[in-house]
Amino acid sequence: MKDILIVGIAGGSASGKTTVVNRIKEFFGDGITVIGHDNYYKAHDDMTYEERTHLNYDHPNAFDTERMIEDVKKIKAGEIVDIPVYDYGAHNRSHKTQTIMPQRVVVLEGILLLYDAQLRDLMDVKIFVDAPADERLVRRIKRDMAERERSLHSVLSQYQDTVRPMHEQFVEPTKAYADVIIPRGGENHVGIGILRSFLEQKLKERTKG
Amino acid sequence: MKDILIVGIAGGSASGKTTVVNRIKEFFGDGITVIGHDNYYKAHDDMTYEERTHLNYDHPNAFDTERMIEDVKKIKAGEIVDIPVYDYGAHNRSHKTQTIMPQRVVVLEGILLLYDAQLRDLMDVKIFVDAPADERLVRRIKRDMAERERSLHSVLSQYQDTVRPMHEQFVEPTKAYADVIIPRGGENHVGIGILRSFLEQKLKERTKG
Repeated sequence: MKDILIVGIAGGSASGKTTVVNRIKEFFGDGITVIGHDNYYKAHDDMTYEERTHLNYDHPNAFDTERMIEDVKKIKAGEIVDIPVYDYGAHNRSHKTQTIMPQRVVVLEGILLLYDAQLRDLMDVKIFVDAPADERLVRRIKRDMAERERSLHSVLSQYQDTVRPMHEQFVEPTKAYADVIIPRGGENHVGIGILRSFLEQKLKERTKG
Repeated sequence: MKDILIVGIAGGSASGKTTVVNRIKEFFGDGITVIGHDNYYKAHDDMTYEERTHLNYDHPNAFDTERMIEDVKKIKAGEIVDIPVYDYGAHNRSHKTQTIMPQRVVVLEGILLLYDAQLRDLMDVKIFVDAPADERLVRRIKRDMAERERSLHSVLSQYQDTVRPMHEQFVEPTKAYADVIIPRGGENHVGIGILRSFLEQKLKERTKG
């Protein structure tokens, strides 16, 4: 393993980030690992379940980005790394870990992935998946009501209380750090094709070198 | 010549569009032709010079996009085409034409290049070069005062009277049609590299097929 390509994929909640990541995964198959920023949600063993449900999970401080930076540095150095696993049901870091083997392409993804300068500096390519705010809201309502059995009222309250203000304050400005912005998320076949071409070519160059 | 790749590059005034186009040109050398939407500014032989200086050149109606569509169709069909040449000094279409020979890659560029649906449909890749409005204004002031010997007052008046409102109304919304958005224009080396990889790969595929 000569070199590892670190690809950062950011974008607002329900922007189509996951679809873009999945389309890249399908293409590269076994040669790729995806690590979510969400894996690094901070542990809050000191709090009750009730307290943890009231935390703001869309704020940069919700993440243990320092640990992610350390892990990505190790991954870049070709080490095998155990990354934390988050338990969404318990709203807390679990006691499990996930073993990340060295791969040619490592995709990091998350809404605030481009927020921290040290983390950004570890990336070879920085992508921001973009979609209009109202379209993201529609998708979020559908997803949270169907898959997460949330009430419409709770989805909308959370959107107004944290999702929207955090997006405006922290997520949207990180678009400026992206190398390319992919509008229309998962449905943007040409945009995803452009990204895949680039990754393929980078991999070839590195295999040669 | 099997197939011709049509690449549309749009973006606001002074967004770094031209730098992106030039960096692609350097890379592909002789295999590329660039056609500006500006070549297709409408002829106004019926007006006086004074009247022509007061036209709004940032409005979609300033362009003879229908003729551009016809020309691009011919180019795609492998024909040699004579495109109009605009005379900026006279603010009018000149009587000269420019002969466009068939090339592997044809780049179309202009602020409103993604405005017309028929023109968009002729493009294989649609790029929007983006930069914050205030940075574009800084560049425009510098450029127009240095290269075009305009007074600061005239640059700012034109900006407020036409450039800015036309940008908001017509240019900015076309970002939604782009396959990828390249922020930070000409200084975005990774973004431009991604675009070049894609064009290179497309050309290889077509040469093979």
